[in-house]
Amino acid sequence: MKNEILFNLTYGMYAIGVKDEKKASACIVNTVAQVCNDPNMVAVSLNHNNYSHECIVKNGLFTVSVLSEDTSGAVIGALGFNSGRDIDKLSNVRHKILAEGVPVLKENICCWFLCRVVNSVETPTHTIFIAEICAGSDEAKGKPMTYDYYHKVIKGKAPKNAPTYQPEPTNDDLDGDSWVCTVCGYVYNDPDVPFEDLPEDWVCPICGAPKSAFIRK
Amino acid sequence: MKNEILFNLTYGMYAIGVKDEKKASACIVNTVAQVCNDPNMVAVSLNHNNYSHECIVKNGLFTVSVLSEDTSGAVIGALGFNSGRDIDKLSNVRHKILAEGVPVLKENICCWFLCRVVNSVETPTHTIFIAEICAGSDEAKGKPMTYDYYHKVIKGKAPKNAPTYQPEPTNDDLDGDSWVCTVCGYVYNDPDVPFEDLPEDWVCPICGAPKSAFIRK
Repeated sequence: MKNEILFNLTYGMYAIGVKDEKKASACIVNTVAQVCNDPNMVAVSLNHNNYSHECIVKNGLFTVSVLSEDTSGAVIGALGFNSGRDIDKLSNVRHKILAEGVPVLKENICCWFLCRVVNSVETPTHTIFIAEICAGSDEAKGKPMTYDYYHKVIKGKAPKNAPTYQPEPTNDDLDGDSWVCTVCGYVYNDPDVPFEDLPEDWVCPICGAPKSAFIRK
Repeated sequence: MKNEILFNLTYGMYAIGVKDEKKASACIVNTVAQVCNDPNMVAVSLNHNNYSHECIVKNGLFTVSVLSEDTSGAVIGALGFNSGRDIDKLSNVRHKILAEGVPVLKENICCWFLCRVVNSVETPTHTIFIAEICAGSDEAKGKPMTYDYYHKVIKGKAPKNAPTYQPEPTNDDLDGDSWVCTVCGYVYNDPDVPFEDLPEDWVCPICGAPKSAFIRK
């Protein structure tokens, strides 16, 4: 079997909102699935090393913001390729804090809901949290962003902590003019504008890393 | 919160292949997600009442066939709207039986893989099986069918045992000329061909029920 066949599983794109004693934070996941409709419950898979995992274990509370195709790649980069241990990930992301202290995004999301953990199960690298949905938005708008859309249209990558992360199979699609972001793996290869001609304050559209974080492949 | 916002979660469409002492069977699910990549593991959610649930509990073994946009709605109907307790669901569905006794589909699927259950967790209505992937196809082809595509293009419905099932919100979209399949909920309202004019051997494109199983709404 080739690992690449697993890219044929379909996912959405979600921001998980969490809190610790001092602040609110959020991360990006692709594995949210409804697992019961009486009551409404979801399963969410998070890497043991993620700061958000630590927060959910402590507080048993998180939100799910369903990203839409209009949610910018930069939001995904800010929340998906940094750790809430190191920085305030939400500083440049529009959001509101619910009464429970957890954040939901206001960045062109489709809808959001609040979840309370009722159970969990372990895998070697990830915990699957089972949670009951206890509140949520009254309406949905926009078109949900799929993981496929994120990869193909936004040209985003999976961070190493994602359950779906697979090492890049080959560099066959990279010619000598491709530049790769060392933070998130985004490949710049716009044939119309050589990388060298981008302005010095240009940043990676996915993770916001500076031009200097790119290496030629 | 409106339950309808949960329709904004993104899923794929999968056939789960199982076996009991006598025969192989299969059902349709939308909740398959990779939850670990070292080793490769997936989570699958199945209703307690499903025959496939019973088989997996007994044997700890199942396959996942990833349906493609070219997999016909009739295959989904045959596997999704009948019980393996009552009939041989695979009798009209092209498939092969693996050495382990579990079936994989040969109906324009993208790829397949074989899973061995290593853990499980309960919700009030569904069991989430955590399973290690132990074999699979060497290549993938076609475009994976999303749950959204199934609803919008194939106009399929969710059976009552699906974790994402929600009662139909209203009948506002049904005019006097709509006919509804009492087996699977498929709504026939082709403006060009009145239901009465369909040939007598016409069957529901989703579940294969005869014309007589339809009622006017």
